[in-house]
Parts: sequence; structure tokens; C-alpha cells
Amino acid sequence: MTASPAPTAPFAWPVRVYWEDTDAGGVVFYANYLKYFERARTEWLRALGVGQQALAERTGAIFVVADVQLRYLLPARLDDVLSITVQVRDIQRAALLLSQQALRADGSLLCEAQVRVACVDRERFRPRRFPEELAKRLLEDHPAPV
Amino acid sequence: MTASPAPTAPFAWPVRVYWEDTDAGGVVFYANYLKYFERARTEWLRALGVGQQALAERTGAIFVVADVQLRYLLPARLDDVLSITVQVRDIQRAALLLSQQALRADGSLLCEAQVRVACVDRERFRPRRFPEELAKRLLEDHPAPV
Amino acid sequence: MTASPAPTAPFAWPVRVYWEDTDAGGVVFYANYLKYFERARTEWLRALGVGQQALAERTGAIFVVADVQLRYLLPARLDDVLSITVQVRDIQRAALLLSQQALRADGSLLCEAQVRVACVDRERFRPRRFPEELAKRLLEDHPAPV
Amino acid sequence: MTASPAPTAPFAWPVRVYWEDTDAGGVVFYANYLKYFERARTEWLRALGVGQQALAERTGAIFVVADVQLRYLLPARLDDVLSITVQVRDIQRAALLLSQQALRADGSLLCEAQVRVACVDRERFRPRRFPEELAKRLLEDHPAPV
Repeated sequence: MTASPAPTAPFAWPVRVYWEDTDAGGVVFYANYLKYFERARTEWLRALGVGQQALAERTGAIFVVADVQLRYLLPARLDDVLSITVQVRDIQRAALLLSQQALRADGSLLCEAQVRVACVDRERFRPRRFPEELAKRLLEDHPAPV
Repeated sequence: MTASPAPTAPFAWPVRVYWEDTDAGGVVFYANYLKYFERARTEWLRALGVGQQALAERTGAIFVVADVQLRYLLPARLDDVLSITVQVRDIQRAALLLSQQALRADGSLLCEAQVRVACVDRERFRPRRFPEELAKRLLEDHPAPV
Repeated sequence: MTASPAPTAPFAWPVRVYWEDTDAGGVVFYANYLKYFERARTEWLRALGVGQQALAERTGAIFVVADVQLRYLLPARLDDVLSITVQVRDIQRAALLLSQQALRADGSLLCEAQVRVACVDRERFRPRRFPEELAKRLLEDHPAPV
Repeated sequence: MTASPAPTAPFAWPVRVYWEDTDAGGVVFYANYLKYFERARTEWLRALGVGQQALAERTGAIFVVADVQLRYLLPARLDDVLSITVQVRDIQRAALLLSQQALRADGSLLCEAQVRVACVDRERFRPRRFPEELAKRLLEDHPAPV
């Protein structure tokens, strides 16, 4: 009898809410969660050893979002510190399926997203495989589709 | 035998792509389509005679996006003129379901969204019915759920 | 005796204030006036027959702001329609000095800027002369430094 | 004979450049430095024990930028880490004069600003004195105008 592997805690990145993020409703403008989610994905890639600027120059590959489902549950306000998570749901040949959440310091879930990220060549935006080095790092981290 | 009613053309609002909208990939940053979709919804409401600032002051009601599904198909670039559409899919007591598209001048579909807009009171963000005047205008425009 | 030339009205471009532009103070966020001023400069160039994307591809020249002085006088609010002006103050070999204003519909001055725009090559951001076609168009419009 | 006080190092706050900050020129969009400068001012106030949301609720005072002079020297690019500084130049009854800089990790100066911040009441945007607690903290930190 083998123990099932302990679930991995998702990658998390802190984000502070500044004036620039809010709108006249007194809360974070709905488009800005996509900025927060992008920052967290970039930091998650960086933590995996992947710098996007360097990767693009070396391989011509950039990442684009192909689709997103977003649910807004509670508003964030000025000065809040949010924790933005990234969790791999599926690794495909030329796409990644990620779950992301924006959580307040008290643990409340403010916004959540399912994001499909595709790998494309930077000149023509045509789908291409993930660069070898990234595919390898992702599979090390996520040995089987989760 | 009755003829089925002619389908109504969706509301459309033109949006020009400026430097502020683009990113280092040379295309419109993915979060900015949510800005475009919001502008078009605001202009659609204005065309229905509803100013949001005035409405909030008179009734305390503001609109918030409860969820969005976004699909990105083709990138938009600097100087492009996009047509952003709004089409009502369903009218509920305290929510509207809308379809929105971002189209290039040549008719190509760049991005599309399903957006659920809820009506909340501006102080506590609690769901409430649509203000009478708006409900009436929406039902005049869309006599039955479409 | 010659009549002095009638002063030219400055170029003006209308800008609507949307949710994306406001902050939790209920007014337009201070950085966003730089977006409005950029849009108006782009439209002013377009009215002179200069598309920046096309110009960059043909000549390698792009425009960058070298310095700005901004004064904020009155706040703009959601749903306001602003008029953003552009007026040439001086034409130099590789730079333009422009005055810009943001005016409310009632004529109130909300924000004003002095902007120095430089011409650089897009690869290295090194100063270069204005492309011939643009220099010619500017001088036709502004026969002498104003 | 008294020694002149040692010059204080300016407050500095790190800012990472993300996709959202860049434009199609491949560099940080010029308006976004005003976001960076605002973040650093907010963190500087926080380091002085002043939370703006709390202050506004308690005293009705908010800070607005009255004028800015900006010089752009070198472009910042994706993935750069910038250091954004804040240095008090003068403390007046209802205004602060600040110097701010955006520096790259190698010490290069990318952008610098002189910013006059005014204190106003949040309802009418009328000038008012700085709240006592803030004035006291500022004067402790900066015993004489610098």
C-alpha cells in the first residue's frame, strides 16, 4: 500500500492594491485581476528558472492567453494585500491549463480564474511546442497531469 | 404561419488601439479587452438612456461583473480600429447575460466574451434588483429573453 | 501694412471618461492624463497624414516623450467628455515642443502639459531627425516657430 | 560650530516591470512611471506609519498631485527591477515637494520627477492642512526643510 503523494501547495505571489488599481466604485477594477494573474504566472515561470524576455530572444517563443474563465466573488480595496496563486491543471503539447486565485489576507477568495496559456512564435503568433527547457521543468514539477 | 422576428443587429462601439493598449509583444495586452468591453457596455447603457453616474446617485445601484468567459482568437495591433459589440442573451431579476465581441475592420473576430453583469448597491456590493427605469428600458428593447 | 496671421485653433480630440480611468478617489487617476495626451498627439499626427505604425515600418523612426511638465487644476469624473488639445510651440531638428490641455465640456481647464517629443530610431532609442515627410507636413502647418 | 547633519538616503521601493507596463515599442509606457512613483509615495507614507485608506476615513484628507515635472532618460524593459525613490524637498502647510527617481539595478537613472503633492478634503478636493499626525511624522523625519 502506497501513500498518495501529498498535494502540492500552489505557487503564491503577493500583490498590493494601489490607487492605480482601483476605480470610482472604490474597489479594484475588474480588468486588473488579469494583470495580477499575469504577474503571478510570470513569477511562477521565473521561480521555475524561466525568464520570458530571455526565452523569447533565445527561442522565439512567447506565451499568450488563449482563453480565461473569471469569477468575481468579493471586491478588493485600496491597501489590501492579495495572494495570487498559480496551479497547473494540465500540461499539453502547446498549452497549459492553470487555476489561479486572488485571496485576501484573511483567506477570503475574491476572484478565481481558469486560464489556458498557449505557446506561440513571437513573429506570427502561430502555435508551437513549449521550448524543451520549459517542458522539462514543468514535467519535473508536475510528473503527471494533475 | 408567422414570420420569425428579424434578428436585431448588436449594439457596436468603435475603439481605436493606442500605445497605452499594447504590450512588448506588439499587440493589445489581454486585460485591455475587458476595458474595451466595459466601454461598449457603458455606451450601450447610455444609448438606452442610462448614465451610470446619475443612476448611482439617484438609486444607489451600480453594475458589477460577476463572471466572464473570454476567448482570444487573433491579436489587435497599434492603430487598429475595433468594433466592440454588446448583445443581450438573458435578462434576470438582478443580472444580465451579455455576449460581446471585438472585431477588426475586416470583420475578423479577435476576442469574444460572455459576461454576467449583476446589479448591486454601491455601499455594500449586495445584489439588488435592477432599477425600475433600466428594467423597463431593457424589456422594451428585448421583449423576451433572447 | 500686412495683417498678422489669424491664430490657429489648436487641434482637439474628444475623450470620454470610463470606469477604467477613475480611481477610488472618484476622479480620473493622475497618470491617465498622459494616456489622454498621447491619444490626442496620435490623432493629431494622423490628421497630418502620419500613421505611426506605418512610419516606424518605413523609416524606423518612433516618437518618445523626453520630458513633460504637468499641472493638475480640477478633477475629471466618470462620464465626463474631455477635449484634449495639441498645439505646436516649437519645431526643432529632432524634437517638438507641444502644449496640451484637458478641458471639460463647460470649458474648465482640468490639466495642462508642456511636452517635448523626440524622434528616435526604434532599435536603440537614439535621437534622429524627423522623417522628411513629417518635417515637411509640420512646417506647412507651422511655417515659423510659434 | 556644529556639524551639518549627514544627508539621509532617500526612501526606495523596488518595482518589477511586467507585460502590463510595456508598450509596442518594447519598453515601459511613459504614463506608467507615474504609477511607479505613486506606489513608492504610498509605501513611503506607509513606512511613516500612514495608511491612506485609514487616514481618509479618520480625517477626510486625501493627497493629490498638484504638479509634476518628468524627465525620461533611458527606457526600462520587461523583467527589469527598478528602484523608485522618494526624497522630501520641502514641507509646506498644505503641500509637499518631493524628488523621485526610477533607477535600474545597474544604477542607471531612467526617469526622474519633481512632484508637488497637496492635501485636500476628499469630498470637494479643497486644499487643507496636512493631518496633525502626518505633519508631526514628516517633521520628525525632516526637521528642517531640505
